[in-house]
Amino acid sequence: MFSTDQKSEIDAARAAWAETRRTVVPAAEEALYAPVPVLETGFVRLVDYMGGDAAIVQGARVSYGKGTRSTSDDRGLIRYLMRNRHTSPFELAVAKFHVRAPIFVTRQWFRHRTASINEYSARYSVLEKEFYFPRPEDIARQSASNKQGRGETLPPEAAQHVLDLLREDAGRCYDHYLEMLNQDEAGNVIDPDRPVVARELARMTLPVNVMTQFYWQINLWNLLHFLRLRADAHAQYEIRAYADAILGLVERWVPHTFEAFRDYMQEAALLSGPALRALRAVLAGQEVDLQASGLSKREVSELVAMLPEIGPRLRP
Amino acid sequence: MFSTDQKSEIDAARAAWAETRRTVVPAAEEALYAPVPVLETGFVRLVDYMGGDAAIVQGARVSYGKGTRSTSDDRGLIRYLMRNRHTSPFELAVAKFHVRAPIFVTRQWFRHRTASINEYSARYSVLEKEFYFPRPEDIARQSASNKQGRGETLPPEAAQHVLDLLREDAGRCYDHYLEMLNQDEAGNVIDPDRPVVARELARMTLPVNVMTQFYWQINLWNLLHFLRLRADAHAQYEIRAYADAILGLVERWVPHTFEAFRDYMQEAALLSGPALRALRAVLAGQEVDLQASGLSKREVSELVAMLPEIGPRLRP
Amino acid sequence: MFSTDQKSEIDAARAAWAETRRTVVPAAEEALYAPVPVLETGFVRLVDYMGGDAAIVQGARVSYGKGTRSTSDDRGLIRYLMRNRHTSPFELAVAKFHVRAPIFVTRQWFRHRTASINEYSARYSVLEKEFYFPRPEDIARQSASNKQGRGETLPPEAAQHVLDLLREDAGRCYDHYLEMLNQDEAGNVIDPDRPVVARELARMTLPVNVMTQFYWQINLWNLLHFLRLRADAHAQYEIRAYADAILGLVERWVPHTFEAFRDYMQEAALLSGPALRALRAVLAGQEVDLQASGLSKREVSELVAMLPEIGPRLRP
Amino acid sequence: MFSTDQKSEIDAARAAWAETRRTVVPAAEEALYAPVPVLETGFVRLVDYMGGDAAIVQGARVSYGKGTRSTSDDRGLIRYLMRNRHTSPFELAVAKFHVRAPIFVTRQWFRHRTASINEYSARYSVLEKEFYFPRPEDIARQSASNKQGRGETLPPEAAQHVLDLLREDAGRCYDHYLEMLNQDEAGNVIDPDRPVVARELARMTLPVNVMTQFYWQINLWNLLHFLRLRADAHAQYEIRAYADAILGLVERWVPHTFEAFRDYMQEAALLSGPALRALRAVLAGQEVDLQASGLSKREVSELVAMLPEIGPRLRP
Repeated sequence: MFSTDQKSEIDAARAAWAETRRTVVPAAEEALYAPVPVLETGFVRLVDYMGGDAAIVQGARVSYGKGTRSTSDDRGLIRYLMRNRHTSPFELAVAKFHVRAPIFVTRQWFRHRTASINEYSARYSVLEKEFYFPRPEDIARQSASNKQGRGETLPPEAAQHVLDLLREDAGRCYDHYLEMLNQDEAGNVIDPDRPVVARELARMTLPVNVMTQFYWQINLWNLLHFLRLRADAHAQYEIRAYADAILGLVERWVPHTFEAFRDYMQEAALLSGPALRALRAVLAGQEVDLQASGLSKREVSELVAMLPEIGPRLRP
Repeated sequence: MFSTDQKSEIDAARAAWAETRRTVVPAAEEALYAPVPVLETGFVRLVDYMGGDAAIVQGARVSYGKGTRSTSDDRGLIRYLMRNRHTSPFELAVAKFHVRAPIFVTRQWFRHRTASINEYSARYSVLEKEFYFPRPEDIARQSASNKQGRGETLPPEAAQHVLDLLREDAGRCYDHYLEMLNQDEAGNVIDPDRPVVARELARMTLPVNVMTQFYWQINLWNLLHFLRLRADAHAQYEIRAYADAILGLVERWVPHTFEAFRDYMQEAALLSGPALRALRAVLAGQEVDLQASGLSKREVSELVAMLPEIGPRLRP
Repeated sequence: MFSTDQKSEIDAARAAWAETRRTVVPAAEEALYAPVPVLETGFVRLVDYMGGDAAIVQGARVSYGKGTRSTSDDRGLIRYLMRNRHTSPFELAVAKFHVRAPIFVTRQWFRHRTASINEYSARYSVLEKEFYFPRPEDIARQSASNKQGRGETLPPEAAQHVLDLLREDAGRCYDHYLEMLNQDEAGNVIDPDRPVVARELARMTLPVNVMTQFYWQINLWNLLHFLRLRADAHAQYEIRAYADAILGLVERWVPHTFEAFRDYMQEAALLSGPALRALRAVLAGQEVDLQASGLSKREVSELVAMLPEIGPRLRP
Repeated sequence: MFSTDQKSEIDAARAAWAETRRTVVPAAEEALYAPVPVLETGFVRLVDYMGGDAAIVQGARVSYGKGTRSTSDDRGLIRYLMRNRHTSPFELAVAKFHVRAPIFVTRQWFRHRTASINEYSARYSVLEKEFYFPRPEDIARQSASNKQGRGETLPPEAAQHVLDLLREDAGRCYDHYLEMLNQDEAGNVIDPDRPVVARELARMTLPVNVMTQFYWQINLWNLLHFLRLRADAHAQYEIRAYADAILGLVERWVPHTFEAFRDYMQEAALLSGPALRALRAVLAGQEVDLQASGLSKREVSELVAMLPEIGPRLRP
């Protein structure tokens, strides 16, 4: 995945220590620069960070003035801030990642507008021959119930056929790309008498599973928002793989925040007003008449999925 | 480009008039909903707007209170605001567009983070067989001087060969896309015994010149910023074609702002501190020693490109 | 609150109807321009809008393509979008308000960064002699339990004393303001031989309950986020009064969205992962040992406040 | 300005060094945590930073891929990026400041929406008895030519009178504030039988020259945009004092960027299309007829202010 040059660059960066007066998080330092592989040909690396759990706590204490000086420990305060969605202290921590991912994944990724992005330019440089091909076990049918999701895995032969098509398309499109650029894979000119088509034009024939690279910088609150959506079961598997890798880095960098995120965002559930009223009636020992509850069928099934124990107490 | 259904939808929308107390701009109403063709298979339509030159002036007058009541006419005030980059009144006008464009163009487009976007989802629906293929005269060599630009047009035969490659790739990739989806172009199932691959997977084989659609809403200031960058000679020709089409709509909607934009943003030039000092010396009748001026070679050539008449007065 | 001039301006705006092809919401048209009084000397006016429930639905259908064409009615789709926090279609509707409010309220208001603001400038113009003074029944003690809230109302005499202090300070500071500006309340020069202090300096003596004015434009999603925080019981009463007035306008403009907001945002409650597990145990007929549940004391009391019926089933 | 406690906190922070693999900028480390006094009772402190000139260069090189590897040195690349407003690499550097400033300054400051702010809460805590009073030499007349600016300094006696008014108002308002809070300056209860008015209410009597504190985090590009507007001669003197202090810190942290900012943003001038055409005619040795030039009177005087040497060549 990395050339020898890139590997020694990473090793050199990891070997260079310096003194700082800033907040240092040893576990983040340990992770710094090292690539975490994702989807075979992709990766995520933490390449810089600012602040940590301690900086979040300090930022919150500025707002509260002397008020909180001694009230609660750091973990408790972070959990309080997360539970009550006091977002501004979390904005004070920032992380920067280096990512390699297929274009169709970056198209979902960059819909999050609150980050700074520096992406490899295919107008300026030639894209490498790196594509994403799913593992056979990740090639699945269109879901019947979920219009934007996958169902069960394809039988091995059918999956192999899909892979053959994907590999054939990627290979031929990339060959044509190089042909238009009049260069071989090593970057040498093929025929000095033929013209070199502009890179910004030639690249238009590459499929969206070609790999691109970018630097991505985001504050912690916006990062958690991204992770809640993209590490979720409704997200496409491929971006979820990246979100999961980033979650692992977040856990090392800001462990208290990570734990609060899990409890109050990731595993938390939202009860609507009508659902809350139905639940209270059930807890009070009443049977709930669904038709009178104001809950739609879909909401009822979402409620039962969240609280299976409530099912028998609902009257259709 | 449009199906019969879509055409009658547009006609119906254009035929439906209602009464409003809001600011109405007749020339914008005239343009509303009608598609402006771009790049053969693409288009831009203005589908909603809020405010206009009058609303910008009114917003500015709130800030200045009684102060400006009578000082200047609307055109003069708008030019003053633009010249001095008083951006907030321009934020009070908003436009919404419906766009069809190739994916590689949207990737540049969506780097502008200050807009609201609703894009057609290729997880949810099947992409149509619509691709962008450049006209032969737009197929150009890689520029030698500009690493991210195009040079001269290719000879007709070479251009035709490029087009053949692009059409072949698009065609075959789309065939494979349908094969994975187990459907024909009309949307009928090909073989009920074969599995339908998830749309979110199958689409990964489509090249980035496939067309997508989106709604794009943006306030006028951010729109002008977009247009300055994307209607510029340094922008890739394809996105420039869209920016030019949008500029035409902006001219009809907010004519004073359009004129001020042209004079103070589009045709305006930035003189650096060192360039300004060199220019003042020239105007004072002195010859300017470039080595002492602090200007790099590149800056000197940029300055001469902007003010060709200054060339003879510079001493290398 | 309004001068005769301003009243006739509003009347003229309300009397001027024109034809448009854009989405029109009759109930919003009815409300347009008319001030809704808030806090005696303040107001909120809807002065422009773009889109409505119909535009939200249309924006969502672009994303889903042919997929949703017939699945659900508008109300159901809006409720689905809100429940699942699909925010981008709500961004397609925009509202613009004209507000008069005390400075200390605007300081909370403008912390919401996703809006466009044009505020009356006290560098450019003279601030009017308009202050906010609470009604006696709104003057309350510092809350003992809530470090940033109010407790019970003050006894009438003590409340009157507070009001006396506020009125005395406002009056004298404003007198000094005019003295520095060397003008009387009607704007006439007091003494032509005395200097006029710069407005940007003189205004620094005015207390934060002086009234200011601004135009505020925001898309519907960000507006709902603002309303959830500022129409909430934890918000300061004074900003809540503005949020409630805006909610009334939102209800008229986008009734389906308003209803969904109330059910899925305003009245909804978030259950943390640990709280959810405790609740499931209770529903399954078990007693829950709080010490083993991972819930802090504060979380338990929040849970009991939300679901009072659960109280007897928890074992301390 | 600082209590003994705060001073030892700062000393402790400055004494604590740790090892990091991240980019370290020694001159920024030297400045870290130390307050820079502004406006007598205010200050700015750099309390964290991420990246530096080196990180900007590295971010840019990601975009350009192998293309730029060896083309230019860091300083030249940064100047190129700044000159051409390639903003995204500058977004990769971030700074965090701790600021104490008067409320009327923060009201201008917080209009910049692209920063993260954690401000001391006057609902939660009691504001200290710290106010901004201008030095006599900063107390000036309203400018006659500039509706939002200051003219010449007041005569000493008149300035002293202004100061007396400001001090009297601040003193009495603060006394009333404490009276409502039923506490003395040391925080002791005055009369246990009297009620304590809610802090969120009592604070409304404080004038806008009372000091507040906040943490402010912003990326370098947005910071430079802030500095261009607020370190400018048109900005109010008081916020300019803060902008100048921050500029000093920026110079130490990112010296190449600072220099490029000065040359290409701060000292740079924008020439409109019509002004450019007039200038070219002058350089070609022609006299320019202003009436035919399309330049307004105001634009002509702006042009002459920028290039005084051009004056004699313009024909009114």
